[in-house]
Amino acid sequence: MKIICEQHKLINSINIALRAVSSKTTMPILECLIIQAESDTIKLIANDLEIGIETILEGNIVEPGTIALNAKIFSDIVRKLPDSDVTIETDDNYKTTITSEKAEFTIYGFSGDEFPYLPKFEKTDPVVLSQFSLKEVIRQTVFSISDSDSSKIMSGELFEIKENNLKVVALDGHRISVRNIELEDNYDHIKVIVPGKTLIEISKILSGEIADEVNMYFTDKHILFEFDQTIVLSRLIEGEYFNISQMFSGDYETKVSINKSEMLRCIDRSTLLVKETDKKPIVFNITDEKIEFKMNTSIGSMSDEINISKSGKDMLIGFNPRFLLDALRVIDDETIDIYFINPKAPCFIKDEEETYMYLILPVNINAEVY
Amino acid sequence: MKIICEQHKLINSINIALRAVSSKTTMPILECLIIQAESDTIKLIANDLEIGIETILEGNIVEPGTIALNAKIFSDIVRKLPDSDVTIETDDNYKTTITSEKAEFTIYGFSGDEFPYLPKFEKTDPVVLSQFSLKEVIRQTVFSISDSDSSKIMSGELFEIKENNLKVVALDGHRISVRNIELEDNYDHIKVIVPGKTLIEISKILSGEIADEVNMYFTDKHILFEFDQTIVLSRLIEGEYFNISQMFSGDYETKVSINKSEMLRCIDRSTLLVKETDKKPIVFNITDEKIEFKMNTSIGSMSDEINISKSGKDMLIGFNPRFLLDALRVIDDETIDIYFINPKAPCFIKDEEETYMYLILPVNINAEVY
Repeated sequence: MKIICEQHKLINSINIALRAVSSKTTMPILECLIIQAESDTIKLIANDLEIGIETILEGNIVEPGTIALNAKIFSDIVRKLPDSDVTIETDDNYKTTITSEKAEFTIYGFSGDEFPYLPKFEKTDPVVLSQFSLKEVIRQTVFSISDSDSSKIMSGELFEIKENNLKVVALDGHRISVRNIELEDNYDHIKVIVPGKTLIEISKILSGEIADEVNMYFTDKHILFEFDQTIVLSRLIEGEYFNISQMFSGDYETKVSINKSEMLRCIDRSTLLVKETDKKPIVFNITDEKIEFKMNTSIGSMSDEINISKSGKDMLIGFNPRFLLDALRVIDDETIDIYFINPKAPCFIKDEEETYMYLILPVNINAEVY
Repeated sequence: MKIICEQHKLINSINIALRAVSSKTTMPILECLIIQAESDTIKLIANDLEIGIETILEGNIVEPGTIALNAKIFSDIVRKLPDSDVTIETDDNYKTTITSEKAEFTIYGFSGDEFPYLPKFEKTDPVVLSQFSLKEVIRQTVFSISDSDSSKIMSGELFEIKENNLKVVALDGHRISVRNIELEDNYDHIKVIVPGKTLIEISKILSGEIADEVNMYFTDKHILFEFDQTIVLSRLIEGEYFNISQMFSGDYETKVSINKSEMLRCIDRSTLLVKETDKKPIVFNITDEKIEFKMNTSIGSMSDEINISKSGKDMLIGFNPRFLLDALRVIDDETIDIYFINPKAPCFIKDEEETYMYLILPVNINAEVY
């Protein structure tokens, strides 16, 4: 194989493919990037058996062929080359020479015969949305997937498409995050669970531009994302997702409107007093015109207050401050509405159109202390 | 004690004093910052028994007094407060209330009676230089102090003042870094060894501005740096520094002039092939018009070449690439001169005026391989 390409294009393609390179594996071939130069197309390919990525690299094929190179060594070398033409040439023993200007590196590759290439995938009827929307919806929900291994289903996100709506749900037993996105077209009903890891990796390589599109294709076992010069194929998580509709009843006792940034800063400060080993709630004392916030830990105590507008009953309720922070950080609205039922029931942060709904379970508190 | 000060001024002072807070200690008092409010001056004080820092905080003293607060907790809280007036008030039990706008934190402090305050220091005849010069000279030498505990003297830097010259030397047995700075005034002869740790910490709080000055005061045991609203007191390292003058003879066999940036990039790339466990040299093959660079390791091999102008003999010589990189990174000249004696003797990188001299020992190489 012999190819010539520009250093900055090569490093861009490498950075995309690297997201599917296995870091912890007993199979050295999974630590490799494949360079495949055939029929006028150069592809970089990586696959950690959960996610596979193929991305097209612009360049000249002098001699077609395939080589597997250790992804870390190869990417480190290319990253430090001058931004100039890079020639990659292999011999029959997979010895690979990487040349740029007068600098020449020689490293040892593999045949790539054992590499788990991505299966053929029938691409029909894509669901289309902007890269901006997909990247945003991942950022706005993925923090509430479960990071424990106890539930495979909680480690993924529900992607449910109905007519022209994409609903994305993530939950971990303490909270539920829901986002609804309006799509340009109408689609048949699709309901799948996408691994959180896939979503985290893909959000790192999406451009985030409104003008750039992503096509999503679905089969029983897989989801395929296609965008720019890249495809990302991921297994789906099998099983039935939780039925969350009954969790979001319309009833509430107390509704509060509050400035989001003020609340975020207040709760952020309170976490300074929280040690890993000594999890304490932040307590809301909700009265007619304000919420008083209080926290007491072994380190010390804090209190603060924020003016609100409120309808319904007064309430004393406690929360894990981290769960509140996670939700507040991804809401763009400057004033938010929070709905409370009682001190033992979850609160909801949501907008009227329900483009976002964050449900957070409270923490039991000893009301007499506050 | 009760004081009121602005949040951004308080956090600036905390950031300075934090550099002398002990992170690993069995004495909780050394993890504290002292706030001392007396005779119209608020000071923040920290001391890890190697370095002590006192810095003046602008603010109002409502009630004089002293409090010791855990530096990490106190600084974390202040950092997250709004940029507004902060009130710090203590009671008889050292309970400390930190208030800003409606936010109020309460933490538990200590009396500060056990704190090792900085000794009185007679400030006479300062050596004066700009904060820029001191910060630069530390950056340009401190990488070559020894980080092993085997030699106390090698863990410090020589500061030698003669007439209007400050010479700073750092060495670790493989290399020597020397910088000479011209001072505005003439001084009596001073020769001390300053701990590397002191210099690293102080360079983090120096402004780096040419217009800002530092006063340095010396006693047998201590050096005191005075700048802005801050004093930094450090122990000196006792003992006789190495006599390096005979190392820098004027003789050489080969002199090379080379583009520094090209050489830096070339050597930087070569280090990609170096594993921690498998230290290999970069080999220079110096001929009339160019240096060929080569490296061979278990990962692979590289070669590169750079045009030079040269006088004297051809030479084949090997170096630890890291030592070259450290020196090249802190030299501002775009073209540098390197002097070689023979493949077993150190090379020198120096300018004609000897404002900088970097001596680097070569590595034995098997000449037949290259």
